[in-house]
Amino acid sequence: MRITFKSFNYIGYGIYNDIKTRLPYYKSDFADAFNYRVIPSTIFIFFTNLLPAIAFAQDMFDKTDHAYGLNEVLMSSALAGVVFGLFSGQPLCIVGVTGPISIFSYTVYELITPRGTPYFPFMCWIYLWSMVFHIIIAVGNYISFLKIISLFSCDVFGFFINIVYIQKGIQILNNQFKVDLASGYCSVMISLLMIICGVGSILFGNYLHYFKPWVRRVFVDYGVVLSVIFFTGFIHFGGHLDETVLATLPTTSSFVPTHTGSDRAHGWFIHFWPGDNISVGDVFLAIPFAILLTFLFYFDHNVSSLMCQSKEYPLTKPASFHWDFLLLGLTTGLAGILGLPAPNGLIPQAPLHTDSLVVHDNLGKKLSVVEQRVTNTVQGALTFLMMSPPFLIVLGLIPQAVLSGLFFIMAITGLHGNIVTNRIRYCFLENSYIENDPSCPQVWKDIHELPNKKWFYVYTALEVVAGVAEFAITLTKGAVGFPGVLLFFAFCAKWVWPLIIPREDLDKLDGEVADEFIIKNLDITNHIKREQRDLEAKGDDVNLQMYEMSDGNSRYS
Amino acid sequence: MRITFKSFNYIGYGIYNDIKTRLPYYKSDFADAFNYRVIPSTIFIFFTNLLPAIAFAQDMFDKTDHAYGLNEVLMSSALAGVVFGLFSGQPLCIVGVTGPISIFSYTVYELITPRGTPYFPFMCWIYLWSMVFHIIIAVGNYISFLKIISLFSCDVFGFFINIVYIQKGIQILNNQFKVDLASGYCSVMISLLMIICGVGSILFGNYLHYFKPWVRRVFVDYGVVLSVIFFTGFIHFGGHLDETVLATLPTTSSFVPTHTGSDRAHGWFIHFWPGDNISVGDVFLAIPFAILLTFLFYFDHNVSSLMCQSKEYPLTKPASFHWDFLLLGLTTGLAGILGLPAPNGLIPQAPLHTDSLVVHDNLGKKLSVVEQRVTNTVQGALTFLMMSPPFLIVLGLIPQAVLSGLFFIMAITGLHGNIVTNRIRYCFLENSYIENDPSCPQVWKDIHELPNKKWFYVYTALEVVAGVAEFAITLTKGAVGFPGVLLFFAFCAKWVWPLIIPREDLDKLDGEVADEFIIKNLDITNHIKREQRDLEAKGDDVNLQMYEMSDGNSRYS
Repeated sequence: MRITFKSFNYIGYGIYNDIKTRLPYYKSDFADAFNYRVIPSTIFIFFTNLLPAIAFAQDMFDKTDHAYGLNEVLMSSALAGVVFGLFSGQPLCIVGVTGPISIFSYTVYELITPRGTPYFPFMCWIYLWSMVFHIIIAVGNYISFLKIISLFSCDVFGFFINIVYIQKGIQILNNQFKVDLASGYCSVMISLLMIICGVGSILFGNYLHYFKPWVRRVFVDYGVVLSVIFFTGFIHFGGHLDETVLATLPTTSSFVPTHTGSDRAHGWFIHFWPGDNISVGDVFLAIPFAILLTFLFYFDHNVSSLMCQSKEYPLTKPASFHWDFLLLGLTTGLAGILGLPAPNGLIPQAPLHTDSLVVHDNLGKKLSVVEQRVTNTVQGALTFLMMSPPFLIVLGLIPQAVLSGLFFIMAITGLHGNIVTNRIRYCFLENSYIENDPSCPQVWKDIHELPNKKWFYVYTALEVVAGVAEFAITLTKGAVGFPGVLLFFAFCAKWVWPLIIPREDLDKLDGEVADEFIIKNLDITNHIKREQRDLEAKGDDVNLQMYEMSDGNSRYS
Repeated sequence: MRITFKSFNYIGYGIYNDIKTRLPYYKSDFADAFNYRVIPSTIFIFFTNLLPAIAFAQDMFDKTDHAYGLNEVLMSSALAGVVFGLFSGQPLCIVGVTGPISIFSYTVYELITPRGTPYFPFMCWIYLWSMVFHIIIAVGNYISFLKIISLFSCDVFGFFINIVYIQKGIQILNNQFKVDLASGYCSVMISLLMIICGVGSILFGNYLHYFKPWVRRVFVDYGVVLSVIFFTGFIHFGGHLDETVLATLPTTSSFVPTHTGSDRAHGWFIHFWPGDNISVGDVFLAIPFAILLTFLFYFDHNVSSLMCQSKEYPLTKPASFHWDFLLLGLTTGLAGILGLPAPNGLIPQAPLHTDSLVVHDNLGKKLSVVEQRVTNTVQGALTFLMMSPPFLIVLGLIPQAVLSGLFFIMAITGLHGNIVTNRIRYCFLENSYIENDPSCPQVWKDIHELPNKKWFYVYTALEVVAGVAEFAITLTKGAVGFPGVLLFFAFCAKWVWPLIIPREDLDKLDGEVADEFIIKNLDITNHIKREQRDLEAKGDDVNLQMYEMSDGNSRYS
């Protein structure tokens, strides 16, 4: 009770604190970009963001009867890149169109269009309500509750998303059989070749020892991009391929919405006000959806942000959670009004972005990270450029089979690194390998040293159950509720698992998502206590100071 | 001159010596088969022999206008298994239809049918002449000249054969596009899935650490067989596959020749005598082909035999080269008369056979080899069983796409172990890996320690040139001459490379095919000298002894 009261009392403190600590670095965020790493990082993150985005565009296009398409996804990604690049407190966090938001978008479509609710105004209201909730969360310092979310939810979420990617890859291939048999099989062939090249180049770069390390790095960083480019060209190699009809990524006119029907005759700007456009009842029906979406973004965006500033990276500039979540609320509202799928923090792109900016010494030790705003902003601007005629035509050449292959590559590489998969793999590993082979990865050695293996198996089984439950709900009519299942298991991990698994065993399996350092930054109540103590020592009054925060001349800046 | 005279003088000594040393073990060759390893080894070698054989049957069927087909290949393999299992001096050496003989068979077909020469009588004459040459070689003790053949020829031959396998895999897939586009792409899809499963199971078993070692061993030994079985069933899984026309392995009536046209109205027995069947000129035209074939078998069979009794295997029973080559001559002649492709020693099946019979201790050390005649004989008998109606129908269910996948798997696993490929791979490896990583394979460390790397590159380039030259000739009208190219490079390796590369550097790159122990066994001249010395010491006469050899009561037995 006391905490709630305090939080309310110190309304906006989290945002204030984020701005106060980050603003002094704003100029250096541009000055520091004069570094060679910025160029490859920009190219890398541009493609790493663009390619899944177009795969999601294909997916939503198929499943919303062309309500959302490539133009909306590009616009949303571009907007997010530029806004978060320039104005966020943590510009390392890449923001864009994610897998979960595309699932959310088309499941809402499947749910509400049969009952006659107009899609765009309804999505707009979901996003507007969600914006309100975002603002409440940010202003009320409620990001501190991120502590409730443990590694369990993050790991299961990653596991779930990768299973969904496999499903999407299969769905795209299945669609190709609707053209004709040859198109279907040719697509499967291209998709398999994509997997061999894409996963192969990552294995080649990471596990084999050909060429110098920097050449292998090129394979890891650009192997997938080059596979997409190669197989887009491949279908024009002639021979039997010339006789084969292959569906490509559907594109429409540049800079205008994909859907040009009567319900979007007015272009980008959605006519969302009730009356002619949507019934008042539907406006309020949007609230439960907005709650689910808000939880999804709360979880997905903040975890992305945490992951891109994990303690393995030697960052020096401060974190920013409340201000960034406020900004996310604003972009969500804007996305609603423009009829776009709302962007949020991207996993794994956000941590990959930080990784691509690390400066190493000769022995591979991480020395520093080029913390700046240019890479994120420029990749957003480049995505915007993709919407223009020549580039849009180029994107329109990409066969859908390549996008299917891309989903499989994302899933395979994602599952390979996922802790749930690695725990399952552990169950089948030979003991003598873990005990005697120095090349055995640490993750399995750590599991092997657990004092009570029984709870490890129970915990892994719970993870699999949670992952399968999340996936299963996406197959039902209630698919849109998947963030609810996510929330349910987050609560389970916090309050139910400790009833099943003894605390000391559970602590070895589950844990905080955030590092201690960042947790402190998040914990507004303690923060305020500390500041208050400092101020009291100086005979000052913290409440007074709170009202001074907007003038930017606070002594604490 | 003296050697030739001596060799002539001691005519049949090699054969005599083989029989003399091996015959005493004949009974134990059956008694020793009461060992558990014999059962998995029989199953393993049966499939390892059968599957490539049917792939070659498909290949010859396509390229000889159905003159040769599955029945001929099965008959030839079965015959070879039983004859060599029961009567050879080295029953570990698996004999069957090889890739080179199928290339030889169809290139002869392509060359002689346009000029009106009847195929079966002509092949029969090639084989009959070749039988004569085989007998001359065996009786004249000329296997000793195997010493001329160095590792260069063996390595290049393996490299060449694997390139041919890739070509064959592609050709089979290309043929499927003649059915229709869907059939073509579906075949490519199945072939790619076969590669992923087949190569995957070998990688899984050899390099990963799941399950107990014996389970992984099952993946290595039966992964490819299970892939063939699975994908043969796969095409009946329904869905779009039911709508797809997929060509399967062509089979004909059981126990009768594939070709039932007017030139083979008389069944298995070929009417080869000149006059009505073939012109006298063509009978003599067969001689140059027979010489090429004899060289091919001389090389391929003896190297197979050497490889299956390499020094890495702790064998205790003696080797037998001259007697086995005589037997090979007889089976070659018989194959000619029955209108079959002639069988000869199989690489890699022969060494894989020995490997499957090794008894290991708990630490994986090779203790002994179950040297016996049962595995080879039974696999031959099982192959004969495959010719009977129910099994032939089952073989006829195998999609050609699966055979294509099989060719690719053979090529990939073959190239992976080939020294030429590994030398090429060395050129691209990072130095620090070879120098510092203990997991770096010894083959690369050995190369890295060569004093003069320049000659290594020259030698590797020569190997690549020789391999490409052998492959290139198979693409021309003169394809049948490929054993000639093989012979040419064998001479080059012996007499030309030493003019280019300094002897001490060459010795580190090239070497004897056979182990010292076996070389001694082969070297009849020295053998005789030694025996003579022994005899002289006993006041006896070697020439007298030579005439006693047939009575089997020689005091030396």
